[in-house]
Amino acid sequence: MELADCSINTITVRSLGLRAVIDEALARGVPAIAPWRDLLATVGTDEAARMIRGSGLRVTSLCRGGMFTAPHEEGRRAAIEDNLRAIDEAYAIGADCLVLVCGGLVGKDLAGSRAMVRDGIEAILPHAAAAGMPLGIEALHPMMVADRSVITTLGEALDLADAIGSHTVGVVVDAYNVSWDPQLEAQVRRASGRILGFQISDWVVPVTGQLVSRGMIGDGCIDLPAIARSVRAAGYDGPVEIEILSDRWWSQPPGQVLDVALARFARDV
Amino acid sequence: MELADCSINTITVRSLGLRAVIDEALARGVPAIAPWRDLLATVGTDEAARMIRGSGLRVTSLCRGGMFTAPHEEGRRAAIEDNLRAIDEAYAIGADCLVLVCGGLVGKDLAGSRAMVRDGIEAILPHAAAAGMPLGIEALHPMMVADRSVITTLGEALDLADAIGSHTVGVVVDAYNVSWDPQLEAQVRRASGRILGFQISDWVVPVTGQLVSRGMIGDGCIDLPAIARSVRAAGYDGPVEIEILSDRWWSQPPGQVLDVALARFARDV
Repeated sequence: MELADCSINTITVRSLGLRAVIDEALARGVPAIAPWRDLLATVGTDEAARMIRGSGLRVTSLCRGGMFTAPHEEGRRAAIEDNLRAIDEAYAIGADCLVLVCGGLVGKDLAGSRAMVRDGIEAILPHAAAAGMPLGIEALHPMMVADRSVITTLGEALDLADAIGSHTVGVVVDAYNVSWDPQLEAQVRRASGRILGFQISDWVVPVTGQLVSRGMIGDGCIDLPAIARSVRAAGYDGPVEIEILSDRWWSQPPGQVLDVALARFARDV
Repeated sequence: MELADCSINTITVRSLGLRAVIDEALARGVPAIAPWRDLLATVGTDEAARMIRGSGLRVTSLCRGGMFTAPHEEGRRAAIEDNLRAIDEAYAIGADCLVLVCGGLVGKDLAGSRAMVRDGIEAILPHAAAAGMPLGIEALHPMMVADRSVITTLGEALDLADAIGSHTVGVVVDAYNVSWDPQLEAQVRRASGRILGFQISDWVVPVTGQLVSRGMIGDGCIDLPAIARSVRAAGYDGPVEIEILSDRWWSQPPGQVLDVALARFARDV
């Protein structure tokens, strides 16, 4: 793909400040970024919004809302309040969507935890709709079910979106999380018109942790061009986020990480 | 569950020799074991068969056949030949089934790799049918798709069994691999009459490797009693294998591991 199709998810170069990420994107001809909320917090939402809007960069998503599951009502209510703030932040920076990483398992009750996720999304839906801020449910890899997301497949994310039944709710497809799924092609087709974002990295072994073992584009076994074609065919025409959560790549100088990632994006996607 | 419902999968105490595992099972009132092939190889299949048959223990499975995927024809042919030997070994020790761990991804071609698995099973099917040895397709957790199994869900394993369409082919359910799946209950029902084995351990975090991060029964977040009830309701009435691949537990004295595992089996399943 061309760099014109690319977005830099800030977690890929998490040691950079927001100003530095913006400058790197502008200098390298990348038209979009996708910041994480903690990065906005370092300068405050208002200043972050000024910086981003002033740059002319597109914001493919704000990462992340969600985490709706909690053992007690108080925790679930706090999560909802935090998501209302996340919607405001996403609106302030002009994000295409707010990514929802829905939250991990409470106790051993998968069905109950999944119900908490639905309740949480429905609770924030009016505020999101009023702000015109799309909510993108992201299915995470099943190895993160205990601690990050009880929503484990694209099909499950779409079932949840169907159950909620609002035009404000769609899905975000992350190739790392879904590439293994025998239903992937069918579910991407089913998601047509509802794909709010598309993120890529690569699957490498050994897995050294459920969250931060992602590989550089081109180093692993995911057929990224094939998945990208499916996602494009299903109507998502926005920039593709490079989102690499990796202890290995975090230990490299961020400028070099971007050198490699953008070269691979152009060559391997 | 009662210890009368239990089987010791030998990988759980992999430092023990076959004689020692047999003696531990007999001494503890456990009616079954499930050996791995490398353990049989240490004494030879004939001697292993004499020891096991002489003990009166049931053999819930032989672990494992499969690994049908390989980049070249030669490798796939070697895998088939190895599986024919595995069928003979399973027959010799009187195993209820041969577990198939189907093999990981070749290159980036999931569909092609999955086709290799089907081809491999079909190639060994006549020999298995002639021996009356059931073949149990095991879906592994999706985090093992690259290196162990392109068959990632129970639904996919059943689709594959359906496509092959032989009474010799069924499935093995391993709670660790499938507990996350929103389709699990429905697929276990669908598997009714075709469940050849049931294995348990627990899901603990952090995951420190895709293969050997399993937790002790009761230490994690899998609702083992619920899954066990589903599997029983679907007609599997044989012993339940304790199969814990774990660097942590492998570093403990095997007698103590069995103490804990059997106490947890009685208390938590």
